[in-house]
Amino acid sequence: MSEEHAKIAVIGLGNAGLPLAAVMADSGITVIGVDINEVRCKMINRGENPIPEEVGLDELLKAHGGKRLLATPRFEDARVCQTFVVIVPVFVDGGNNPDFSIMQKALHSLGCILKKGDLVVLETTFPPGTTEAMAQIRLCESSGLSASDFFLAYSPERIMTGYSISRLREFPKVIGGRDEESGMLAYQVYRKFISNLHLVSSARVAEMIKVMEGCYRDVNIALANELFKICEDLGIDFFEARENANHQFCHIHLPSTGVGGHCIPVYPWFLIKEMEKREHFSNCRLLRSSREINDEMIHYWAERILLECMKINKPLSSIKICIKGITFRAGVKEFYHSRNLGLARLLAEKGLDVYAADPLLTGDELASKGIRYIKPEQSDLVFDPFELKFIAAEKN
Amino acid sequence: MSEEHAKIAVIGLGNAGLPLAAVMADSGITVIGVDINEVRCKMINRGENPIPEEVGLDELLKAHGGKRLLATPRFEDARVCQTFVVIVPVFVDGGNNPDFSIMQKALHSLGCILKKGDLVVLETTFPPGTTEAMAQIRLCESSGLSASDFFLAYSPERIMTGYSISRLREFPKVIGGRDEESGMLAYQVYRKFISNLHLVSSARVAEMIKVMEGCYRDVNIALANELFKICEDLGIDFFEARENANHQFCHIHLPSTGVGGHCIPVYPWFLIKEMEKREHFSNCRLLRSSREINDEMIHYWAERILLECMKINKPLSSIKICIKGITFRAGVKEFYHSRNLGLARLLAEKGLDVYAADPLLTGDELASKGIRYIKPEQSDLVFDPFELKFIAAEKN
Repeated sequence: MSEEHAKIAVIGLGNAGLPLAAVMADSGITVIGVDINEVRCKMINRGENPIPEEVGLDELLKAHGGKRLLATPRFEDARVCQTFVVIVPVFVDGGNNPDFSIMQKALHSLGCILKKGDLVVLETTFPPGTTEAMAQIRLCESSGLSASDFFLAYSPERIMTGYSISRLREFPKVIGGRDEESGMLAYQVYRKFISNLHLVSSARVAEMIKVMEGCYRDVNIALANELFKICEDLGIDFFEARENANHQFCHIHLPSTGVGGHCIPVYPWFLIKEMEKREHFSNCRLLRSSREINDEMIHYWAERILLECMKINKPLSSIKICIKGITFRAGVKEFYHSRNLGLARLLAEKGLDVYAADPLLTGDELASKGIRYIKPEQSDLVFDPFELKFIAAEKN
Repeated sequence: MSEEHAKIAVIGLGNAGLPLAAVMADSGITVIGVDINEVRCKMINRGENPIPEEVGLDELLKAHGGKRLLATPRFEDARVCQTFVVIVPVFVDGGNNPDFSIMQKALHSLGCILKKGDLVVLETTFPPGTTEAMAQIRLCESSGLSASDFFLAYSPERIMTGYSISRLREFPKVIGGRDEESGMLAYQVYRKFISNLHLVSSARVAEMIKVMEGCYRDVNIALANELFKICEDLGIDFFEARENANHQFCHIHLPSTGVGGHCIPVYPWFLIKEMEKREHFSNCRLLRSSREINDEMIHYWAERILLECMKINKPLSSIKICIKGITFRAGVKEFYHSRNLGLARLLAEKGLDVYAADPLLTGDELASKGIRYIKPEQSDLVFDPFELKFIAAEKN
């Protein structure tokens, strides 16, 4: 490995890219971070942390922001690097097909500065086969290089907002190359800042590993939701049963209003859509059922809320219902596929007098999501979607 | 607790009951075991082990059989006891509804010797609610006692043939009463021979705990089977991906030809049938899908076997196919819901020239299952259903 691969560009300084860039810099690597968000770049270069909920990131940015970690909105500034890590989002569109538009734009811009001998490592989670097909083709197109002119590998991010720094430092991380040489080179570069690193046989296997993890989570949350509903039906305390059922061989998850965020509700679709494209419908029945069960949980909770209204001595139409928390996860100000926001909207759609309160949001921010604010104590019924608990106001 | 509860009767000395009775006796308790199988009773009283694959049972039976552990085919002989543990099988019938016939017969006979103040603990896995409803009613009917005359509790067995003794000695075991007094009494009696014992709030919760565990296993095996099929489709080595995907929060199981035996393929039906009876069809979609996916795996493997035949330069109809293992699990001579036996029968049904070989079975024993024996080396294609591997004979 030539020494120049030690200067690394990180394309994308979002919730996943920024902690990674900061950990690299903290390992003594010079990092050039590229992000289209100029305000964010300036913050980082002043040593300020744009993701306050990320434990440990404050210190790293204070130490390295504007010094070993330089943020820039211009790809051109990263031309001096020989290793490029791409970590920009891939979502699913309205039809649950992967939406590569941001990724393709980033790869196009990267191709324009890519040189012979450079190494590109992708970190974004996407369908198995994407690195060796879509990504490689796009890089060749815009760089004018042939595929054998550069090295290409894949290493899925395993971050979780709030815990990303410790995950990067302790959690196992896998990496796999488009070919053996790419895999070996990428492994050597990544070893400098990732201690628990595992080289796998191909980029495709590394891609599958990350998607499989997400599927495990989604299916097991669907199972927890299904068992929770059955327990409620049978008059059994799910939580007591779960606590005593779980042991070294049994890992029943927690029930919820569904699964939100950028990861778990998205990844199963990568496999479902690929199988459906191949007309192998029976190969993704469990994944599809799990997605449906989790997404439909808001209907279950809407009915539970309606039934809870029987305890209140008022006409149903005048009962003020407060959903206490509309972000997708407690403590994280994000709404992507938020089932709690979905629940509030579903109740409004049914014509109920629904409001929300969220410690992370102002009334104006709630209004921008189409939901009215209420102080919980001024409502008649409060539903906490994170605790799955009802709090009936005493005034009735 | 009166001292008399220390003499315990175990009703059912099968694969689950006998290890339990042996562990009780080894803890210094006088045990009277009741089983309709007279030959088995005589063996036990001679100190001989009818379950040779059960590690550690030999020693326990040699030490206590015919001494502290007395086996008898007559319920009458157990009348001296004040604690009765019932551990006889409950299966599902052709329509996947629970078949309580053996259990009801045992409870009827037990009722005939039941006295005021006695304690009955059920260990058989069955649908939540069975102890406080069916079992209690049946005991009252045949004893003439009222429910408050005797104590009733439930503590699910968590044995696994081959590992039962260590499971009883180390694994957490839960126990719950029909009422608080029954739960406390049962807990005190069981503490004498179970060290890792947990009292839960009711028999119903204890019943659910065991069924939930089975559902977790079945759903996760279905997930492994689905991910395995997707990996095969995408040209990815499932086993490499699984090894690297699993960590403290991810527990992807192993793929298989399906799920056999008395436990995992049976328990989900207890909940599915109960939900369907209540017309709550959407509460058991994942459990039902998982059952179907696992049971249909033999169709997947039948196709894989057919495709493998393309490698053999012979007409398909004259290719001798050998299924190497037809028991439901490797190393255990049991056939209940064996998917491997199901696979052999499915191939025969399709008109293929199918045979089997199983180290645990003679040719006559195979014939009694309707399957012809062949030496693996005399066949053209060998499929090992435990390893999911093909062994093509070299002679072609």
